[in-house]
Amino acid sequence: MDEIKIFAPATVANVACGYDVMGFAMKDIGDTMNIRKIASKKWVIENGRGCEGLPIKPTENVIGVAVEAMMQAYGKPIDHGFHFYTTKNIKPGSGLGSSASSASAAVFGVNRILGKPFSRKELVKFAMEGERAASGSAHADNVAPCLLGGFTLIRSYDPLDVIELQYPDMLYASVVHPQIEIKTSDSKKILKKDVPLKDAITQWGNVGGLVSGLAKPDYELIGRSLQDVIAEPARSKLIPYFKKAKEVAMQEGALGASISGSGPSIFALSFSRKIAESIAIAFNNVYASNGILANVYISQVNSKGTQVLE
Amino acid sequence: MDEIKIFAPATVANVACGYDVMGFAMKDIGDTMNIRKIASKKWVIENGRGCEGLPIKPTENVIGVAVEAMMQAYGKPIDHGFHFYTTKNIKPGSGLGSSASSASAAVFGVNRILGKPFSRKELVKFAMEGERAASGSAHADNVAPCLLGGFTLIRSYDPLDVIELQYPDMLYASVVHPQIEIKTSDSKKILKKDVPLKDAITQWGNVGGLVSGLAKPDYELIGRSLQDVIAEPARSKLIPYFKKAKEVAMQEGALGASISGSGPSIFALSFSRKIAESIAIAFNNVYASNGILANVYISQVNSKGTQVLE
Repeated sequence: MDEIKIFAPATVANVACGYDVMGFAMKDIGDTMNIRKIASKKWVIENGRGCEGLPIKPTENVIGVAVEAMMQAYGKPIDHGFHFYTTKNIKPGSGLGSSASSASAAVFGVNRILGKPFSRKELVKFAMEGERAASGSAHADNVAPCLLGGFTLIRSYDPLDVIELQYPDMLYASVVHPQIEIKTSDSKKILKKDVPLKDAITQWGNVGGLVSGLAKPDYELIGRSLQDVIAEPARSKLIPYFKKAKEVAMQEGALGASISGSGPSIFALSFSRKIAESIAIAFNNVYASNGILANVYISQVNSKGTQVLE
Repeated sequence: MDEIKIFAPATVANVACGYDVMGFAMKDIGDTMNIRKIASKKWVIENGRGCEGLPIKPTENVIGVAVEAMMQAYGKPIDHGFHFYTTKNIKPGSGLGSSASSASAAVFGVNRILGKPFSRKELVKFAMEGERAASGSAHADNVAPCLLGGFTLIRSYDPLDVIELQYPDMLYASVVHPQIEIKTSDSKKILKKDVPLKDAITQWGNVGGLVSGLAKPDYELIGRSLQDVIAEPARSKLIPYFKKAKEVAMQEGALGASISGSGPSIFALSFSRKIAESIAIAFNNVYASNGILANVYISQVNSKGTQVLE
């Protein structure tokens, strides 16, 4: 195989209570990447539509960094290089796992061309190195669901332990991306290094409730558990009209709503496409009526993760 | 119905990572309580075997406090009182939910005599008032599994939201109670009011992993998730030979081991009775060889909770 085309989905990390540990993949939105062997032994990165402004130097781009980490682990010399051409539908800085999507597509595609030396789960740690390059922290809550699909839990970072959670088929995400930019690194800085034990207990009660609600499934429990007392109170201040957007989502019948990743995107979960559509319209209205451009998306949870196209 | 005999099981709260929110009930060990109507309109508390030193004044005893909370909610006057006679197999101060057992038996039995005006879940909040009287904090992580059986999660304390978790049939607890006393109030004081966000994230990753492992079931995941970076590091210092006891449990094949409630009892979980027995013997040897009296127990997880006897 000399050439391959990959789809890597957008992802919602944190999922309210699951700060730094939970995430899920979306179905119909994501990036595509063409990867082909080239004779020269290097990684050549070409920016397609939606990649404007991203670095193309392999040591600075998430693709180059993630693939380099993978080749180090692969250990065997290869007699060629790779050319990567990315088309981005997930805008960098959206809070929808744009860097995770690039890193995941790259390691997934190269792994296929090399004959699958690594499992999907093993690819997570290489893609995490891309995240480190993008945001300064090797978080896995986007790359894990991007590669594996579904809802994932990072039970532990050291050693890395990625859990594929049970979840119901009928679960829809509505997402709004107001066109303002928040850097993950800035959004991390806003959080305190220590938290009240009382709040931490509330948070892990909700994590337990969400995991249980997804597994049973119990939609009301999922809804009651979609609460974040750690990150949302601080980070929501960086997102204009967050409170209003959350309010309209709940009015339309969302199970719950919170910030996607470090924002500014906002997600809501619901159990029917009809409700998910109403929420998306309401989301859009909040921003349109206040003169802020916004993209909205509706998607079922993606059970497949990163895929070969065609 | 004028008289009733109740069994209320011992319980293991916290369950490693689930500080203040998780607990499970044991099957073959617990307290029994005879409750009968009496003509005088008061609560009479009589201490049977194992209750030595417990207060008998209803305003000071968990039974009286819990039943009083329940009668306040009941709201209707009754033309009689109740006599409570308790036989304790769960030693107060053991960390096995002794006060929870008394409070749960009392409210469960009185509720039956009154014709079940309250559901089991509703009884939890009355029994919590007993816990407040015993330890100064109205925690629910013992009374919820004691009343409901199985594994429970307190998703939220305000409002109270008790979740009955899915868990596998084949799950055994081995427990050792070294005969030293630690007061819950002292054991709470040893914990800091603030925790590093990093540790809190580790803890909620494990809570998610444990809830998922119990639901799937995935015994290895249960084992990997039975880790506590919040309470165990501080509280284990109050328990002699804790490290050694945990070590022998793991050597015998435990999925994991930690402190039961606020200690000094230590629990281990395993997936077979044979392993559970080996752990119990090893637990006992640790304390016997160091001249400390200890009781050991083996039990499957109790799916029924508090029950009427006969």
